[in-house]
Amino acid sequence: MRRAIQDRYPDDFAHCFGCGRLNDRGHQVKTYVGEAGPVTEHEPADYYRGGGEAAYGGIIASLIDCHSAGSAAIFWMQANDQQPGIDESPRFVTARLEVDYIKPTPLGLMRMTGHAEEVGERKVIVTTELSADGQVTARGRAVMVRVQEA
Amino acid sequence: MRRAIQDRYPDDFAHCFGCGRLNDRGHQVKTYVGEAGPVTEHEPADYYRGGGEAAYGGIIASLIDCHSAGSAAIFWMQANDQQPGIDESPRFVTARLEVDYIKPTPLGLMRMTGHAEEVGERKVIVTTELSADGQVTARGRAVMVRVQEA
Repeated sequence: MRRAIQDRYPDDFAHCFGCGRLNDRGHQVKTYVGEAGPVTEHEPADYYRGGGEAAYGGIIASLIDCHSAGSAAIFWMQANDQQPGIDESPRFVTARLEVDYIKPTPLGLMRMTGHAEEVGERKVIVTTELSADGQVTARGRAVMVRVQEA
Repeated sequence: MRRAIQDRYPDDFAHCFGCGRLNDRGHQVKTYVGEAGPVTEHEPADYYRGGGEAAYGGIIASLIDCHSAGSAAIFWMQANDQQPGIDESPRFVTARLEVDYIKPTPLGLMRMTGHAEEVGERKVIVTTELSADGQVTARGRAVMVRVQEA
């Protein structure tokens, strides 16, 4: 895959704080097709700490949300004979997000992998494993709904 | 109540990006005791938009997470004859976060109210209703765990 799934969102969907390539203030999360499925790697700035030294809950939830939207687009495209990162990406929004915080996530490089629990025409359910320093520290599950074109 | 629950966190817990009064880059969320329970009001900057014009999923999840931590502290203190905003606040971290996105949340002032599903010695479960422009746009449920003093 040449480009991240987020790089092929249409311009009017590319201002998202989480994953929009046109939002200068945002995270600009990038999700690629890996060997075992979608992969997102991201290193938040050090001020995204929580009460202690670890990452704060909101950044973990945000990253899992963004990764899930990108992963849903990848899974949907693969199920519909489209090429992620080449063809224009379909847009998904979050209907439900669940995050289990297993242990504190150290601030630094985080890696998320995605699996498809369900891939439908309008709905894709993505499960996510987030790891840092080689340990799984959080798990997510997101129900993503495809935005229909006007 | 004179001060927000977050204003009475000990200094070493006050750097959280979400609710820390000592994190200049963060949201500095404030939760107060309202007539019907904990209330948090917050207006995110306009760059916290999602793919379209509404708020992005991550900021909604983050605010519900912060509000839940503050609400858990309030509920725990009330159950233990302590005074929120006056006595030092207990620290809670998130074990599980669930967010249902009911409809797009317009960017602007958001108001969250919290209810206690369970108040235990170590675990508090908080449900949240988030509204904007007078409409409920998201609901949350968070399992919060109290950090034991060393």
